[in-house]
Amino acid sequence: MTSLPVGATVALATPLDENGALDHTALAKLVARVVEGGVVGISPTGSTGEGPRLDRDTRVAVTRAVREQAPTGMPVVSGVPLTSVSEGLRELDLLAENGATAALVAPPYYYPLTDADAVGLYEHLADRSSIPLVLYNIPVFTKVRFAPDVVRRLAAHPNVTGIKDSSRDMEYFQQVVAATEGADFAVLTGSDTMLVASLLSGGHGTIAASANLVPELSAGICCYIAAGELDQALAAQRRLQDVIHACRGGTPPAAWKAALHHAGVCEPYLAPPATGLGDAEYRTLMETLESLGV
Amino acid sequence: MTSLPVGATVALATPLDENGALDHTALAKLVARVVEGGVVGISPTGSTGEGPRLDRDTRVAVTRAVREQAPTGMPVVSGVPLTSVSEGLRELDLLAENGATAALVAPPYYYPLTDADAVGLYEHLADRSSIPLVLYNIPVFTKVRFAPDVVRRLAAHPNVTGIKDSSRDMEYFQQVVAATEGADFAVLTGSDTMLVASLLSGGHGTIAASANLVPELSAGICCYIAAGELDQALAAQRRLQDVIHACRGGTPPAAWKAALHHAGVCEPYLAPPATGLGDAEYRTLMETLESLGV
Amino acid sequence: MTSLPVGATVALATPLDENGALDHTALAKLVARVVEGGVVGISPTGSTGEGPRLDRDTRVAVTRAVREQAPTGMPVVSGVPLTSVSEGLRELDLLAENGATAALVAPPYYYPLTDADAVGLYEHLADRSSIPLVLYNIPVFTKVRFAPDVVRRLAAHPNVTGIKDSSRDMEYFQQVVAATEGADFAVLTGSDTMLVASLLSGGHGTIAASANLVPELSAGICCYIAAGELDQALAAQRRLQDVIHACRGGTPPAAWKAALHHAGVCEPYLAPPATGLGDAEYRTLMETLESLGV
Amino acid sequence: MTSLPVGATVALATPLDENGALDHTALAKLVARVVEGGVVGISPTGSTGEGPRLDRDTRVAVTRAVREQAPTGMPVVSGVPLTSVSEGLRELDLLAENGATAALVAPPYYYPLTDADAVGLYEHLADRSSIPLVLYNIPVFTKVRFAPDVVRRLAAHPNVTGIKDSSRDMEYFQQVVAATEGADFAVLTGSDTMLVASLLSGGHGTIAASANLVPELSAGICCYIAAGELDQALAAQRRLQDVIHACRGGTPPAAWKAALHHAGVCEPYLAPPATGLGDAEYRTLMETLESLGV
Repeated sequence: MTSLPVGATVALATPLDENGALDHTALAKLVARVVEGGVVGISPTGSTGEGPRLDRDTRVAVTRAVREQAPTGMPVVSGVPLTSVSEGLRELDLLAENGATAALVAPPYYYPLTDADAVGLYEHLADRSSIPLVLYNIPVFTKVRFAPDVVRRLAAHPNVTGIKDSSRDMEYFQQVVAATEGADFAVLTGSDTMLVASLLSGGHGTIAASANLVPELSAGICCYIAAGELDQALAAQRRLQDVIHACRGGTPPAAWKAALHHAGVCEPYLAPPATGLGDAEYRTLMETLESLGV
Repeated sequence: MTSLPVGATVALATPLDENGALDHTALAKLVARVVEGGVVGISPTGSTGEGPRLDRDTRVAVTRAVREQAPTGMPVVSGVPLTSVSEGLRELDLLAENGATAALVAPPYYYPLTDADAVGLYEHLADRSSIPLVLYNIPVFTKVRFAPDVVRRLAAHPNVTGIKDSSRDMEYFQQVVAATEGADFAVLTGSDTMLVASLLSGGHGTIAASANLVPELSAGICCYIAAGELDQALAAQRRLQDVIHACRGGTPPAAWKAALHHAGVCEPYLAPPATGLGDAEYRTLMETLESLGV
Repeated sequence: MTSLPVGATVALATPLDENGALDHTALAKLVARVVEGGVVGISPTGSTGEGPRLDRDTRVAVTRAVREQAPTGMPVVSGVPLTSVSEGLRELDLLAENGATAALVAPPYYYPLTDADAVGLYEHLADRSSIPLVLYNIPVFTKVRFAPDVVRRLAAHPNVTGIKDSSRDMEYFQQVVAATEGADFAVLTGSDTMLVASLLSGGHGTIAASANLVPELSAGICCYIAAGELDQALAAQRRLQDVIHACRGGTPPAAWKAALHHAGVCEPYLAPPATGLGDAEYRTLMETLESLGV
Repeated sequence: MTSLPVGATVALATPLDENGALDHTALAKLVARVVEGGVVGISPTGSTGEGPRLDRDTRVAVTRAVREQAPTGMPVVSGVPLTSVSEGLRELDLLAENGATAALVAPPYYYPLTDADAVGLYEHLADRSSIPLVLYNIPVFTKVRFAPDVVRRLAAHPNVTGIKDSSRDMEYFQQVVAATEGADFAVLTGSDTMLVASLLSGGHGTIAASANLVPELSAGICCYIAAGELDQALAAQRRLQDVIHACRGGTPPAAWKAALHHAGVCEPYLAPPATGLGDAEYRTLMETLESLGV
């Protein structure tokens, strides 16, 4: 059983109330929405889920709530923003106990990380984790870019089952696909502006922020490509690009939360210290989304 | 009473044993060494102290141990690598209870931070902290550079008493000095390769990694400049530069720990997932230090 | 008649002898090779052609020689590395007189260039040039990235007929396609590792360094996509990626020239001050290319 | 006889009329102004002199005019923005014939330059040039940073007599001073915000844009430091920093030319394609300069 489904997994936003507390009602609504929209998995507490801004108890509570709301059998790939190794191991245990089927583990993001230390770290974690690990390549936030050869070595570990690549670097993505060819290892893009290209390059799907708002688009692209319907996939890709570019404003994931607020799903608040869009940004975003028919 | 003394404060390394556990004996030895070397303050669990790689309990234990070993009245400025705001506030309380006299607070280092959110964050923390805060400007690790105007605004808060600037950008340092002129606010360099220049530009001292190994150099420079003895300051500065450049190798603070190991102070081990210098790097470093007479 | 053909145009290397002089015999051989390989256009004296290292007279001589060797009617899109505006205008005249059908104009690459100045510059040149201009977006060398809106505005000029995008940024490429939709304007990729993706995103072809060595690959990809034969296109794309990654070593275009030397086409020498691959790099490259069957 | 005087050399702006033609009257006025202000040398057609935007004939004309206006014996260090090596050698000859006493040679700035190629290039030029060469380290524009060891090797060449370092990196400056200790080689800063620090670190002076407007400040700092009058030097340094920060706006050297225009020295026009400050920027600059009493 692989921990990562082929298709579109949502990088779930974390609905919060004005005081920064988890909004369980909105979370249930959001999960229902994305499941209905066709996602094949849920990945909470990653970058879109503001994992690095939440405390550990909240992250675990999110996973528990998602597990309760998600259909039986749907993978839950919980984000772990690693700081100390010992705290990371403890969190992996807690997530497993609370229903996560895999963990999306961002490397420690303060100091640089050598290739050798990256391999050692993930092998250490994978040896001890009761759930499989997914590498999180997102250098814009972590400053760490897993060398393709590091990914190749880690893909050989039975408890490292995939990578989410949010580098927006199509060449890198291709190199990772090539480096892990033949391994039981999923290469997922976090840059769904390039979803068609990544699927055609040998990728296995996406973990996408956009799927909070428009799950049918990335889910649809995955289905169209699987069915050989390239033209429909490209049409959905163009529409998806427009939506994503509209939602790039503010500190992530401010624009996605503003759009979800406008759609009646949750409040627009971010976890502190981040603040949401200003009024003018909010209005511009809504006008753009409406002109796109979202 | 200001929380930050004029002079050289050591950015204390954290002695660890082979298993990554705190080595209390070596820590005591190190504190004694730097105090004897002339430092006017101790700043544990910053970047040199590997704070971001340690778990919270270890960080607090380090502060408690430093407080016990340090002379009465010597400031202890403990590093706090901020992740979630609530956990940061809790840690500030714990550090205060365990003897810290101030906290060196690095901004959350995953997402970008707007200027407005930086001001809001530190004011929120400063309003609630029982010990004064020192801003930590170290964009190479946090990606956050406090705009001079942000520093100016925060310097007006009575519980924000200084900044450690490790940007290695002399112009930025000058701009921060200018922006905070007249405020009760200490501008300290973390780049002691430029200590003389920063003192002449209006800086108030340094929080320096080098002071673990050669405390007499940065401490001496501060004294020489205070006494108007420029030539001696410049001679010490040149020597200090040579030592610092020799200790730039490996993942920080690998080379400082290797040098302290060679000096009989502590083991060379880093907190996981970092590993120390390789054998060849270690030998080269020791040869260089010996040729420098350290 | 548009100046830029749909399909693969070669970013022609400039064969030089040991003294840095143009090797006319090798140039003729190279042109014959790429034409036979299926290219639909020739673009000399760009980055692969070492235009910025040659003097103006040599750049003009290359265009004249290419024009003489190329089939009648085949577009010749000559690279102009802009320094002063007046010298650039003079060179555009000379290139037109010597057979160029269009010019690939890199922006001045010393100072930054504002968006407004970029628009003003290219409009000024386009108003005065007797041959159409192609924008050259290659920020790794010029530090200038044409904002999509700048491209949109310039695409409205009848004498600006396309862009070569060598940014390796797939999202940027998509934005440029969207910004110029409906205009009589060719969007060509210079990153043929992403050729299939760029064609599916609405791109019109490529100006490719790889076409010196393996013109049949990029030319084939363009034909396969036009014919709706996606699987063959993807197979050629994978092979092309391997060749390109093998040829990334050394100062550009050292590896391409080494490979052409090995193929018996020309000497491996670069224009001064650049030097070619070292012996070890050369051997490794040849082994890699042979293992790829090139 | 060394080609580079200890003290402040002006990085001379190039007065142009509305059509981009050299304004000889304003140039004479500017030269007189800076000589009266205490500069010990003149460096035209560098970055401030817009050398890279001018054509070669204009650059040579500027040097000839400067030579005619400058006092007998005053060094004229003309900027050469290198593109092709052969054209660079020709320009060095022309500059020497027209009165340059040395050349400030920026490395070719399109492709990257290896350390070995940098050494080979400058040795090649220095062997053939009738006037001594000064290395120009300005990575913000050229992307090339001369490694300290490259500087050390080139400093051994009798016809390479100095470096202008505009990296704004104080540590780099110190490393270059250390690498060239004992050589007959001048290490000059182009970052006169750090002039005091660079002189105390062993630097020999500056080639400064600010000396067009306020030559007495950088010239004064050099004199004060030579005389051991640190306090006066620091006071002048603080004032100089304020002026420089005020003049950072727009594409270089837009703000310096605007300030010279306001001072009645020359028109504010830049060489194409650059345009000067907008009206609002101009007004803000003038208000700032007036508040500084300039």
